This record gives sequence, structure tokens and C-alpha cells, in this order.
Amino acid sequence: MSSSGSVILADSLRAQGIQYMFGIVGIPIVEVAYSAQAAGIKYIGMRNEQSASYAASIIGYLTNRPGVCLVVPGPGLIHALAGIVNAFVNCWPMVVIAGSFDQDQVGMGGFQEWNQISSVQSSCKFSARIETLESIPYLIEKVVRTSLYGRPGPTYIEIPGNLVNELMPGDNISYPPCCPDPPLTLSDPLDVKNAVKCLMEAKRPLVIIGKGAAYSRAEHELRLLLVRANLPFLPTPMGKGVLPDDHPLCVAAARSRALKEADVILLVGARLNWILHFGKPPRFNENVKIIQVDISPEEMSNNVPAHVMLCGNAKSVIKQLSDALCDIGFKGVDPLGNWWSTLRNKIDYNTKLSQSLASQESVPMNFYCAYKQITDYIPRDAIVVNEGANTMDIGRTVVKTHFPRHRLDAGTFGTMGVGTGFAIAAALYTTSLNKSKKQTPVYCIQGDSAFGFSGMEIETAYRYKLPIVFIIMNNSGIYQGLPREQYDDIMKNEDPFIK
Amino acid sequence: MSSSGSVILADSLRAQGIQYMFGIVGIPIVEVAYSAQAAGIKYIGMRNEQSASYAASIIGYLTNRPGVCLVVPGPGLIHALAGIVNAFVNCWPMVVIAGSFDQDQVGMGGFQEWNQISSVQSSCKFSARIETLESIPYLIEKVVRTSLYGRPGPTYIEIPGNLVNELMPGDNISYPPCCPDPPLTLSDPLDVKNAVKCLMEAKRPLVIIGKGAAYSRAEHELRLLLVRANLPFLPTPMGKGVLPDDHPLCVAAARSRALKEADVILLVGARLNWILHFGKPPRFNENVKIIQVDISPEEMSNNVPAHVMLCGNAKSVIKQLSDALCDIGFKGVDPLGNWWSTLRNKIDYNTKLSQSLASQESVPMNFYCAYKQITDYIPRDAIVVNEGANTMDIGRTVVKTHFPRHRLDAGTFGTMGVGTGFAIAAALYTTSLNKSKKQTPVYCIQGDSAFGFSGMEIETAYRYKLPIVFIIMNNSGIYQGLPREQYDDIMKNEDPFIK
Amino acid sequence: MSSSGSVILADSLRAQGIQYMFGIVGIPIVEVAYSAQAAGIKYIGMRNEQSASYAASIIGYLTNRPGVCLVVPGPGLIHALAGIVNAFVNCWPMVVIAGSFDQDQVGMGGFQEWNQISSVQSSCKFSARIETLESIPYLIEKVVRTSLYGRPGPTYIEIPGNLVNELMPGDNISYPPCCPDPPLTLSDPLDVKNAVKCLMEAKRPLVIIGKGAAYSRAEHELRLLLVRANLPFLPTPMGKGVLPDDHPLCVAAARSRALKEADVILLVGARLNWILHFGKPPRFNENVKIIQVDISPEEMSNNVPAHVMLCGNAKSVIKQLSDALCDIGFKGVDPLGNWWSTLRNKIDYNTKLSQSLASQESVPMNFYCAYKQITDYIPRDAIVVNEGANTMDIGRTVVKTHFPRHRLDAGTFGTMGVGTGFAIAAALYTTSLNKSKKQTPVYCIQGDSAFGFSGMEIETAYRYKLPIVFIIMNNSGIYQGLPREQYDDIMKNEDPFIK
Amino acid sequence: MSSSGSVILADSLRAQGIQYMFGIVGIPIVEVAYSAQAAGIKYIGMRNEQSASYAASIIGYLTNRPGVCLVVPGPGLIHALAGIVNAFVNCWPMVVIAGSFDQDQVGMGGFQEWNQISSVQSSCKFSARIETLESIPYLIEKVVRTSLYGRPGPTYIEIPGNLVNELMPGDNISYPPCCPDPPLTLSDPLDVKNAVKCLMEAKRPLVIIGKGAAYSRAEHELRLLLVRANLPFLPTPMGKGVLPDDHPLCVAAARSRALKEADVILLVGARLNWILHFGKPPRFNENVKIIQVDISPEEMSNNVPAHVMLCGNAKSVIKQLSDALCDIGFKGVDPLGNWWSTLRNKIDYNTKLSQSLASQESVPMNFYCAYKQITDYIPRDAIVVNEGANTMDIGRTVVKTHFPRHRLDAGTFGTMGVGTGFAIAAALYTTSLNKSKKQTPVYCIQGDSAFGFSGMEIETAYRYKLPIVFIIMNNSGIYQGLPREQYDDIMKNEDPFIK
Repeated sequence: MSSSGSVILADSLRAQGIQYMFGIVGIPIVEVAYSAQAAGIKYIGMRNEQSASYAASIIGYLTNRPGVCLVVPGPGLIHALAGIVNAFVNCWPMVVIAGSFDQDQVGMGGFQEWNQISSVQSSCKFSARIETLESIPYLIEKVVRTSLYGRPGPTYIEIPGNLVNELMPGDNISYPPCCPDPPLTLSDPLDVKNAVKCLMEAKRPLVIIGKGAAYSRAEHELRLLLVRANLPFLPTPMGKGVLPDDHPLCVAAARSRALKEADVILLVGARLNWILHFGKPPRFNENVKIIQVDISPEEMSNNVPAHVMLCGNAKSVIKQLSDALCDIGFKGVDPLGNWWSTLRNKIDYNTKLSQSLASQESVPMNFYCAYKQITDYIPRDAIVVNEGANTMDIGRTVVKTHFPRHRLDAGTFGTMGVGTGFAIAAALYTTSLNKSKKQTPVYCIQGDSAFGFSGMEIETAYRYKLPIVFIIMNNSGIYQGLPREQYDDIMKNEDPFIK
Repeated sequence: MSSSGSVILADSLRAQGIQYMFGIVGIPIVEVAYSAQAAGIKYIGMRNEQSASYAASIIGYLTNRPGVCLVVPGPGLIHALAGIVNAFVNCWPMVVIAGSFDQDQVGMGGFQEWNQISSVQSSCKFSARIETLESIPYLIEKVVRTSLYGRPGPTYIEIPGNLVNELMPGDNISYPPCCPDPPLTLSDPLDVKNAVKCLMEAKRPLVIIGKGAAYSRAEHELRLLLVRANLPFLPTPMGKGVLPDDHPLCVAAARSRALKEADVILLVGARLNWILHFGKPPRFNENVKIIQVDISPEEMSNNVPAHVMLCGNAKSVIKQLSDALCDIGFKGVDPLGNWWSTLRNKIDYNTKLSQSLASQESVPMNFYCAYKQITDYIPRDAIVVNEGANTMDIGRTVVKTHFPRHRLDAGTFGTMGVGTGFAIAAALYTTSLNKSKKQTPVYCIQGDSAFGFSGMEIETAYRYKLPIVFIIMNNSGIYQGLPREQYDDIMKNEDPFIK
Repeated sequence: MSSSGSVILADSLRAQGIQYMFGIVGIPIVEVAYSAQAAGIKYIGMRNEQSASYAASIIGYLTNRPGVCLVVPGPGLIHALAGIVNAFVNCWPMVVIAGSFDQDQVGMGGFQEWNQISSVQSSCKFSARIETLESIPYLIEKVVRTSLYGRPGPTYIEIPGNLVNELMPGDNISYPPCCPDPPLTLSDPLDVKNAVKCLMEAKRPLVIIGKGAAYSRAEHELRLLLVRANLPFLPTPMGKGVLPDDHPLCVAAARSRALKEADVILLVGARLNWILHFGKPPRFNENVKIIQVDISPEEMSNNVPAHVMLCGNAKSVIKQLSDALCDIGFKGVDPLGNWWSTLRNKIDYNTKLSQSLASQESVPMNFYCAYKQITDYIPRDAIVVNEGANTMDIGRTVVKTHFPRHRLDAGTFGTMGVGTGFAIAAALYTTSLNKSKKQTPVYCIQGDSAFGFSGMEIETAYRYKLPIVFIIMNNSGIYQGLPREQYDDIMKNEDPFIK
Repeated sequence: MSSSGSVILADSLRAQGIQYMFGIVGIPIVEVAYSAQAAGIKYIGMRNEQSASYAASIIGYLTNRPGVCLVVPGPGLIHALAGIVNAFVNCWPMVVIAGSFDQDQVGMGGFQEWNQISSVQSSCKFSARIETLESIPYLIEKVVRTSLYGRPGPTYIEIPGNLVNELMPGDNISYPPCCPDPPLTLSDPLDVKNAVKCLMEAKRPLVIIGKGAAYSRAEHELRLLLVRANLPFLPTPMGKGVLPDDHPLCVAAARSRALKEADVILLVGARLNWILHFGKPPRFNENVKIIQVDISPEEMSNNVPAHVMLCGNAKSVIKQLSDALCDIGFKGVDPLGNWWSTLRNKIDYNTKLSQSLASQESVPMNFYCAYKQITDYIPRDAIVVNEGANTMDIGRTVVKTHFPRHRLDAGTFGTMGVGTGFAIAAALYTTSLNKSKKQTPVYCIQGDSAFGFSGMEIETAYRYKLPIVFIIMNNSGIYQGLPREQYDDIMKNEDPFIK
């Protein structure tokens, strides 16, 4: 008996717990998709590798095990860079598998020949070309593991066309065991003690919950900590839902005030980048003390020196913190004190403002009003995908998220075009989760410009009968440019430069 | 008076003869599009930077002056890599302009911060970041010129967000003059003489006309040479139309035979890559002598050592060759000799075969039959865009092209997804050409899978009222994977690897 | 008052605790060196940037705070890639500062213009170009911190020539505080428990001490753990000295036997790469269980799936392990049991063999004999630098190391040419350590080929009056090629190919 | 019979006319050097790959056929980047061959594993990894040809360790024929006509002769043109000697005046980069018309729009120009006219100044005085290698060059450290040229700092008994930094930042 490269590849992926593969097949990787399906991996044929790569990337965020993006050489891989770079910036695990030119055609101008590793290496944690069949199981374990361990991110492997169908004799192929979840790391107890002290001495403490906390599945630990200490919290866009938006400790409706006045911020799995105004004045208090919880040591003190650095898995570290607070008998922030009063007042004010906007009956509808109609219909447990400019900005404030990882949007990279791919992947995920029970629905709310990036993938959603509700906000988000008359005038004129 | 960065940028582009800009705007490059329009550049707002980049790239092929692709930082640029790499591989001029993070936010995690130069440098002939307003006119001249001179290709420039609206005082900005067309280069007369000798001694000569000949606008010179010498010719896919497909010297219908038996091949602006089977047996005669005409010295003798290397612009070099043949009084290949008889017989045989396929009345229609219905309606002067797998392969043989650069397809890189962007750019181009006369029509014939890559851009075509006929071959080109039952069986089974 | 770019740069470095700068100055960075000296940083002018970069890199290993390598643009930076890549592979912190072309000369062919970031980015953890004077303090803090946090490595910053002397008005430049040592991380107590269980059940346990343990300064904790549990240990080449080579638990003299028979290996700060035969049979036991301690999650399970993964600082994690073993009352490996007997016998046998070689009186001397003469004179506390092929291989086995980080050699990358630079940096380091007491001596033992890479730097050592003893093994290590006569015969012959 | 990878590699190199290989051997490429020697290639074992790469690169400049640089994987290749990048910037052909990790160790941390292609690709015209023995002859032909054709530059190939000794059965390995010299290209006769017109109308014409003219071996054609038209000329540093420095038409001694006043400049194989002050005022006349002759179309109009672009081999194009001037009967620039008078006066003035400096008897000697002593002893036909800062700047003006390619210096990249490698390669080259006649001597004149970069290679020169005279200017060129007392004061002070 003997196995072909595509079979070894597929079996290796399966051995590493891979469940989903998104892509578009063609020479030379048709057989890879066949073998993957035969190995029990769900293959989803998309319409553009761009969306396939977005879909694969979000699987890693939702499941903590990478999705695979399978692409043809050359342009297929280049299209998929969209999801690769986006996953890298958002720190999501993903495995990209590309076909490549035959080993005997190096440098000859073969079909779709391209130095693919050079294109992916600055956005992949590991990238390699398969050079022998024997090394496939090893390399697949490595790309899966590397995408997951440490700060997650994409990894890349390519298979030369000739190896896809080449046979390895014998049936004693050895597959490494499925790589386990990443090892947990904890912070130094001394640092935890310092953090506790800092929190207890704070007059206006605030917790910021990022999508790192969501990825880390720290929801239980965070709830315990926050409730115990009566701490107000703000979620980042994709940190929404780790604790429900309608939780009494959520101060999202007083975001600007909370950021500006907080004297101690416990930052959990969030970066002080543009989304958080770099952690700097005037949006942040100049003297704020940051207690930073992050899986990545390199993230520590970026832009603002952390007062306490708690490096480790958010889940474990928050538990350390929670236990320590408990041990020391911290009573929590006074619910009737100045800080909570300030925040509550601001929340009330802003909520009324928002409600007033939502009740305006302008034609066309304003965003708040339009969202009002929609949100009444969205079930609590829906996964909401949201992208666009205004559509996303306002959606973030008015569409509530009630469960962790139930909001997917343009993310750290501000990427337009992710929505349809995300919705497809999310619907597949929830479908497989809930075979016997009620389906978690997926709502995809996009601006009309954002929708245009990958609107064709609605066909994919339909082809796979995926339960997704697409809602498009027709807000004329497509650039209109100069007014018609002004532009026509210009174009009528003699060219000022060219004869 | 003073000018902003965006105005200087737009005026610089206009000064270099740029007419078209494709893109999607957003922070920080909205003003760049405004200024471009104000300067008289046609800005076309697309739905995905992927298609915008394909559209911009084909403008360069059609007009010998680069189109501009304008994109937002980060994901916008990454999406546009599709067209950048494709243009690089096809050797088409294009200028890519991207926004980028502010100069005071280096390394801080700014909005869509990315090392964009690192992403483009292996596929751009020149790439740079604008660091001062003063250098904009210089750099724009450089990116336009570099994209055109030598073997054409894409170039890249990025503008930090803060410079877009920064003002440069004074009104004495100096713009370099519009860079002229590239200097012509000719071959050494001694090499031309050798080529003539070789052609005259050939028993079974053949001319292969590539898209380099089309780009070089060598149609007149080639026609003269071929008719004078009664030489049979084969076009490459995008070389079709340099001479009309129905020209009596065209032996495309006997392609395999012609390639296999030719003892001397005059290769004009075509590479011996996968499209031409690397120039090697069994598809080529083992002892074939190649007379290679190419603009790029580095292309010379790739894969097969050239018998004579004629380096230079195809247009000029073919004229040299034609003149030399004339001088020497070459009578041309005997129209009644063995070589032409062989070719004619094969052409007749293949034509009948093709006609027979086209007349079959199977349900669903076969490709030949479907194309038969279509081609009758396509005007002689149409620009035909054609992509897909079978749709393109068969379309290439049955859709005739009658004018140079009137066939646009997946090209050297075999890229799926280029069609809609190409059609939009081509329609814009033909519209502007023919303001007062009958419009050259554009036909876009795609397989159903190929259509899926950028189908949303039909909205763009409609928005700009572009005269394009889209024809989709519904040939179930979307990967179906394993048969339903087999796949269901697999998915029901216990996972063999994971508990 | 105002400060120039070079002064801000130098003060920023000093504020981050930088003590040493190695380099070669020239346009435009002469003033940077001046300012650094004025700020109290020790600047050492080397003879080739290659050695300067090696010297700077080893400072980071010796002190846990990066040395700086200062270079001119273009060729200066390219020469320094040697130390950059070597530091990256060895995981040592280092900061590289290069001059670069003026901001108004982008793309113009300025003096030594080069896309330097593109050259360093695959071997630097962070790289950036300074674009404004204001961002210098921020960026310097970032390059220092990033080089230290997580798995250490080099970082890169470049300053355009025009900014070196540009003035920033005002005297209120704000410098971030000195970034503290990296946050400690600990392993999950559950994993520690599993590791303890595994160690206690082992029949033939072994500890491998790598240079990661040395970098982490885990010597005290390791000594405690090993002595408590009576565990045999093997150092990797640069792990030598964490515990002294003459420690009774050291089984280096039975290395092959220990590796091959160990059933449980506690791997501390060492990678299962070529130096450790990839952790695979036949050099390792096929069923060996690895307990892996590493700062880098991505290193976990590389090549061999770890039985227990203990991710964190070696120092903290070994303490966790030691405490847990203590708590559980582990008595330690039986000193009279089979395992220790096997190891002791092998050690005795190999030691005698080595002594016998050392006593041979051949002419020329064999390596063992030569080393015998040398080692008698090397003080216990010397830092020994050792490179070459045989010179290093045998030196590793016969030159004892008695203190942590006191052996410096070709390292993970097997780099020839590091020796002289390492010796210079080590001598500077020990000199500054011991102002008032007896100097720790530095011995640099090189093969004659290895010496040739940077022999000129002896002038540097002399110029700075550094206490280094250089010992060159004249073992004809320079490639001799074919025997003279055979080669002459060939060269006399007619060229078989060229006329 | 069968051949190993190393034999196929060596025979392929020989078949392509490779004569010289510089490098340092080690695992896995020892056998490659053996095989190369056995194939009749001169292998020179250097002391550092840095110098080996410089030596190999200059062979290409001297002989128009690339030298090979052979290096071990990892650090060997990184050291050689020095010569690779330098060759790329100077446009010299060179072939770099590196060993690499075994094909079954991809990603495992093998000996000196490194993504070498990623390190070279931005400075090599082509780079590839050998994946099968069969493709070696093809790939070697490609790297040699690509390094030579078009604008020359370095190319790269790597061989996995396992292929070095792997055997290919059979004795019918097919080697492509030796790639011929690059095809000549000529300029468009119309452009030539325009150039002639422009030259004839010029009031103050000037010819600048660059190292491109030297590489192109255009000496004969240039002499003819210049003498016919009585045109004054300036050489660039390495353009010196194309026509002798003491030629009556040479106006190097009036360089500044000539550049500033010329109204038409014929620029032959030189770039308007930093060496030529970017062709801009105040160093150049604002209205100067450039007639640009260059092999590279992309070089045309860089920094200053060319009035006429003559793209092609300098040798052919200058002949076209010369013939056209002759045809038209141009009498040449009036030797008694204003232009020549101005230049002659300036030359006389500057020559006296220089002589006066040379006759000063200061202690220590000034440069002019020192050079005076030296130059009297240097034979007319010597190849002079010259590097350093002042040593090179002044050497350029006072050491005369009398033959083309007889001056080698820091070049376009301003690289320190090239001298010794260049001298070694030049001496080998002249030795092999002149087996039976008097040896062309090589003089290597370096500043003391420049000498330090590669001083160890004097051993190499000695080992190969190469006839080189090394002259070191002891001008205290090594950076001295702050005065001793000032520096000591600083170091005594309390650290202002660190406690």
C-alpha cells in the first residue's frame, strides 16, 4: 500500500484536529481538497480566495484551532494574503496551504510560478515549502502548533505540484499526535500582588476587555473578578460579549468619560493602538496607571509604560488576580461612590441621546433609527457580523452582544470586506455545534460599500444552505467624488498638461 | 498661495499624462481622489481593491501609459497586491498609490499601519515612501517613468496621512516635464543578418506573436514582414489580434503541428514559459532554432538557448528584420511547398472537427455550440475579455480577434478574477477614444467560477454606464467535491483521530 | 535651548540603560557617537562592522541589557547583518542603529542609499525608520524593550542623515522611563505537578542545560533542583558553566550514553535542533519523555512532542519545579542505582581515553595534548571564547567552564568569526564589573581558520588595552584543496569546455 | 557511471566559462570546491566570506564573465551579502553559490538553517534553490546568463546539503552550451541624430565617462569620438582610465568648473547619483542638456530629464554617435575657443595648487606629498586599488590611471573594506592573463581605517603568492571620539539616568 502526497497532507491535518478548509481548487491542489473531504474535513468552496482566507481566519478565533485556507499557486495565494495579513494583525491562528510549481521547474516560468514564501513571510509565524513526502506530517503539526502557541497567527506551507500525487510506499506513515492546546502561563505572584494593591488604591478604576480576553475564553474568570470587585468595564469592539453589553458593570455608554477619568486601567487582552487612542491624552488620563494583561511579552508597555505587567494567558492571570483580591478581602468599588455616580450619570445621558436619535423620523432614516428596527429582531444569542464605516461605528454602540466571540467586525486592521466570509464561517461553526438543538443564528450587517467587497459570496452561503441573515445599510457609502457639474466642467477643459 | 500634498500629488500625476485612476477611497486618501478629479483625471470608484488593481493594470497594456490604482493603507494595499503581482508577471505598467500611517506614528499601531513597502517590493520595479512634500513631483515622475521604461511593470508610492493635507507654501512648485515614451532600442545589424540567414534557410519556419508584440504596437511591421516572407504565424493567447485571427497566414488551428515541426521559430515578444510548453520536446522540435525578439535582455535564451538574440523593441527590431529581408530579396516561403501544405491540411481537419462539435445539439450545450451562438453576435472590432478554465481555453480557439490588444484574458499568471476589472477599464478606454464615433463594444465572457471572483463589479460597470456585455457560461465550474453520499458517509463516521 | 537628533538619540539610549556601543563611524553618524560618549555610553570603535555587531550582540547575553551596534548606511549595515542574524538565531538582545539617506533624497541614489529595513526585517524583532525628532525617545524605548521582552533578539532603527543635526527647539523633551526587566512568567501548577510525577517515575532521568538557562540566570535554582533530586545533567556548549563542569552531577563526559539511554529529559532553555540531534533516534531514546522548559511557547514540542510543556522564564519555572519536588518529598535519584553506575562507568572510561590522548607526544601535538598545556594556565574564573572546527569541538570537551555565561562560542548558528568580537566585549564587560578588584581574565582560543575572520580586531583590543589572551591553534584549518600536482595537471590541460 | 551533485555543479560552471571561485569551505560544500578544482576552476580560499564576495564581484567587472563566490550556509552567506549588495549597486555580474540545509530537514533547526533566498532576493537578479540534480545544468546556465545580460548584477543559487553527494545515474547529463556575451543593442538612429545636433550646437559640451563605459569596453569608440570632436571629458572615479588621465582632452583637473558650466553633457555609462551631485545645481548648470547613454532603460532621465536618451551598449551607441558625427562632417569643438580656454586656465591653476601641496615638507606629510612619493614608483600599467576616506578622495585626483578598468575603489556604494579582496582578484586576473610576459602589477593603497576591514586577507595574498604592493596611509583615520579628559570626566560622573 502507498499514500499520495495529498492523502498524507489531509490525514496530517485531520490528525491535528483540523475541521474546516476554505478555498478554491484548481491545478495542482484539486486532489488535496478531495483527500481532505475523504478524511472528514469540511471543505467549503468559496468564490474568491480573499473571502476564503477571511473565513478560514475567523474559524481560529471562534474555535481556538486554526481553519485551513487552501489555494492554488500564484494569484490564488496573492488573493489569500488579505486574510493572512488580517489574521496576523488580529493575532488569529490560521493555516494556509498553497500549491506550487513542480520541483523540476524551478525558475522556468512554470504555471503560476511565484516566490510565495517571500510574499507571506512577513505576515506568517512560520512558512515552508514541502520538499519530501516524509516531512509532511511533521510540517503540518508544526504549522498547526505554531499558529496556536504564543501569540496566535497564520502559518504557511506549500506543496509542489509533483508531490500532490507522488506516492510514498508503505503504510507505516507516522503521524505526530494532535498538538494539545498551548501551555498556560501565569504571572509572577509578586506582580499580581502589585496589581491588586494598585487596583485597591484606585479611585477611578476601569477594566478594558479586549478580543484577546475573548480568544482566551476568560469570560468566567473575568465575570468573577469584576463582580467581586464591582469594577466598571469597557469592551473593545470585538471584546464585546465577553461579558454581556447589558451587564450592570458595563460602562460602554460612557466610554469617553470612563477612558478620560480612569486613574487605574486593567487592560485585558487589548492593545493600546489606534482603537484605544494609543492610551494617550487627551483621550486617556495623563497619569493613568496601566495594569496590563497580555499573552505577548512584546506587547507589554507599548506606547504607555505599564505600571504592572501581567504576562500570561488572560484566563489564568485573571484567575490569579481574582484569587488574590479574594484572599485580601477587597470589598470592591463603592457602588454609591463618586466614580460610579459619574459613570451612571453619563450613561443615562448618552442612552437618552441615542434613544432620541433612534426615534427621529427623518427620510431617509438615520442610522440609529434603522438599527432600532433591526435590533429588535436579532436574537440574544446571534453572532453578529458588522462592517462598514458608519454602519460599523454606530452598530458597535447600538447592537448589543451577549455572548463571548459573538461580535465579528473589521478588527484591528480596520478591514473592509471581511463580513461575508466571517458570516459563512460563523454559520458553519454554529451549525456544527448545534446539530441537535436550536441553531445559533448569524446576522451580517454591512454598509453598502462594505458589502461590495465580497457580495458574491452570498452565493456560497446559499450553496451551502447556511442560516445567515444579510442586512445591507444603503447609506450611499460608495464614494461619489466631485459633484457632477464641477467634474464635467473639468473634463471638458483642455488638458492643462498634455497636448 | 499654497498647495496641499494631495493637490501636488494629483497635479504631478496629470503632468505625467495619467488619465485613469481606479480605487476605493477612505482615510487618509479621500482628498487624493478629489484632487485627482479636480486635475482632470478620471477616477473610478470600484467595489474591491482587487478589481481596481486589475483594472488599473490593463489600462497600461491598452494605452502604453500606466493607470493608477489608489488605495487606503493596510488591507486596501493588500487587496491590491492581486493586480500588482499580476501586472509584474505580465509586464504591464501601473502606478500604485497608497495612503500610509502618519509620520509621527511610526511603530505605534496606527490605523492600518503596515510595512507596505515590504509587501510590494518583490513585485514592483520601484517603491518608495514620500517623506517630504517637495519630493512629490520628482517621485511621481519616477514611478511613471520606471513603470514604462525597460520591461514594463508596476511601481509603488505611499503618502503618509499627515502629508495629504499638509500645505506647501508658495506657488512655485516645479513639475518635471511629462516623461516621453521609452527610448527605442535596436538590435545589432550583425544579429539581424544572422536572423535573416536563418529564416531563409529554414524549411519549416514559424512566427510566434506574443503579447509583447501587442504591447509594442508592432502590428504594422509584423504584417509587412510576414506577408513579404509568406511566414505562417501563431499568436499566444493575448498575442491574438496583432494580426487578425482570420489572416491567411494564421495557423492557430494547426497549433500543435506547427510547434512540433517548425525548424526555425521567430519568437516575438513571447516567453518560452508554461504557455509555450517551455519551448521543449515533445511539444517543440528538439533541434528548433529560436530567433528571439524581446525587449528584455534577461529573457533571452530562457529555457532554450536562442540561435539569434534580437534584443530591442519588437516594433523597431521587426522593422530591421523586414528591411533586411527586403534588401536581400527573399521571395518568401513557398505557398505550395510541403510546409504550407502540411499546415493547411491540419487547419482544414481541425476546423471541421471544431465545426462538428459546434453543431452538436446536446443538452446542456457543449462549449463549441454555446460559443457558436455567441460569436455570431460579437462585432469584429469588439474587445473581448475572456476568463475561466474551459471557458477560456475553448474561447481562445473559437472567438476570433481581429485587432491588436482586443483580447484580454488570464494572461501569463493564469489569474482568475481579472475579467470584470479588465472589462471596465477597456470600456472606459474605448469610450474616451471614440467620443464622436461609434463605440467599440466590450464583451466579457466568463465561466461561472471565474465570474464569482469579481461579479460585484457589475455594479461599478452599471454605475458608470459602461457599454459592456457580460456573458457567463454556466458550466458548473464551481468545485463540487466528493459526491454527496460519499461525503455524508464520511461526516457521519466517528472522527478517526480526534476524540 | 534646543537638542539635535544625535543628542536626543544618545540621551534616549542612556535613559534606557544602554552602556555599550560598538561600531564604525562615518557620514552621517559621527555625531551620534560623539553624543553617545557625551552621554556616558562607552563607544568602542572597531575595524569592521561585522565584528562590531558580534561584540554588541554578546553584551546582551552577558548583561541582559542590549549592546548597541552603530553603523553607517548601506555597506555598514550590510556588514552588521552578520551579528544581527547571529543574535536572532541565538536569541540575544541587541539594538542596531544605522544612519540612512536624507529625507529629501528618497529614491535619488543618495550616498549609500539602500532599503535597509528590507535587509533586516526577517532577522529583527522590530525595525523602523525615524521620521520625526519627537518620536526618537519613544522609538528607542521600543527597540530596547522589544529586544529584551519575550524571546530576546535584535531590533533596528535608522536615522536619516538630515535628522542627526536637526534641532528640536525647547528643553522639555520627555524621555520614557527605563524599561524594566521583562515580566516573569510561570507555568501552570498542574503542568508542574505532571512534570514532577514524570521525573519521579523516571528510571534514567537527565537534565539538559541550555544557554537559555544561562541567559535567564537560573543557576541558583538549577543547582538547588539538581542537588535535591540528584539528577545527572548535560550542558549544551554555551550552557556550560551554569553549573560547573566539574560538578559531581555533570555527565558531559558520558554525553552520548546519557542522551541515548535517558527515559525522561528535563530540557531547560535548550532547543532540540542540530546541536541536540533533533531529539531523535538513534542519538535519543525513541520513547524518551521530554519535560520542556522554555521562554518561547513557539519552541514547545518542536521536533519532539513534549510530554510536559513548562512555558516561562527558566529561573521561575525551575524554582516552581524545585519547590514542588521538595513539597512532595522526593528523595532523588539513587546514587548507587543502575543509572548512576552506568553513567559513572562511562565517564571514567572516557576520561581515561581523553587523558591518554593528552599525554601522547606526537609532533605536531594533537589537540588534546595542546589543550592540556593551555588549560593548566587558564584561571577558574576566566571567560573563555572558543571557535573553530576541531578547535572548538575538542575545546568544548576539555576546557572546563566554572561559572555561568563564561563560555562563548560559535553558538546555535555555528558561526565562524565571532571570537574576537566576543572577546573584546567580554573584556570590556569584566573590566567595568571589577573596577576595584582583580580582573576576570578573558581567553580567546581559536583555530587558525577561525582567527582569520576577524584577526584585525586584535588591534582594537590593543587600542583599548583590553586584558585578553589570544591563543591560536595552528592546525592547518585553512582549506588546502586538491593536492598541488593533481591541481597543476588540471590547470595545464586544455579547457574541456571553453575554446 | 554516475555523477554527484557537486560534480554536476562544477561541470556546469565550467561549461559556462567560469574561471574563478572565491570562498571558504565547510559543511556541506567542501566537495563543491574539490569538484570545481577538478573541473579546472581556480578556487581561492579566503579568510572571511566578506572579502571573498568582494573578490568574486570584481572578477565580473574585470572580465565580463562572473566570478563565483562559494559559501557555507547561514553565516557564510550572511557574510557574503557584503559583496552581493555591493555588486548589485555597482551593477557587476557575480554568481553566489551557497550550501543549505538538507531537504528532509525543512524547518527543523538544521545546521545553519536560514531562509537564504529571503536574504538575497532584494539584491540578486535571480535566486533559486536547487531541488533536483537534473535541473543543475539549467540553473547554472541561468544564473550565469542572468548575471550578465541587461544591467549586470549578482545571482544566487543554493544547494541542499544532501544533494551535494547524491548521485545521478547515467553519464548522459546534458549541459547547455556556454551562454554567449549579451546581445548588443543600439539606439534609434533618430535619437542619434538628435544627439549629434545637440552636440554640434553646444557651446560648452562635456563628456562624462562612467564605469559603465569601462564595463562595456567602449574605450576604442570613445577615443575616436572624443578626438574627432575635440570634446573635453571627465571620468568618474572608476571611469578613470577608459581614456588615460593624461590625455589632452581630460579636464579632470577642472572638474568643478566643467560640471558647472557645461551646457550639453554626454553622459556615458554613469549615473546622476551622489557622486555626480544628482546632476543638479549648484554643481551643474541649471539648463544643461543631458545626452544619456546607458544600457539600462530604467536609468534614463533619473534625477534630470534627459534631452536625448540613447539606450544601448555604450560601445555600440558611441560608435553610432561617432559615425553620425563623421557623416555630418563635424569639425569639433574649437581648441582655441572660449570653452577650451576656460578649462585650460582652470586646469593650469589647479595643477599648480596640487603641486604646491605636494612639495610642502610638513611633518607628518600631507596626503599630496605622500602620494607624490608613491606615484613616482607606480608603473603606468598598474591596476590601482584605492580606498579610505581622504586616502581615496585625494588618491583619485593624484594617482593617474592609464588603462581601462585599472582603477578599483569604493564605487557607487562608497564601501569600505573592498580593497584587499579587489587586489587579490585583480592580481589573479593579471597573472593568468600574462603567463608568458611581464606581469601587470597591482597596487593597493588604503587608509589605515579602510585597511582594518580586511587586513587579514594579506595572508591570502601571501598564500597564493600574488604580486600585490600594499601601501597603507597612516593618517589616524580611526575614530578617536571625545578627547580623553573630557570622556574620562563623563565616565566618572554619576550616571544621570540609571541608579
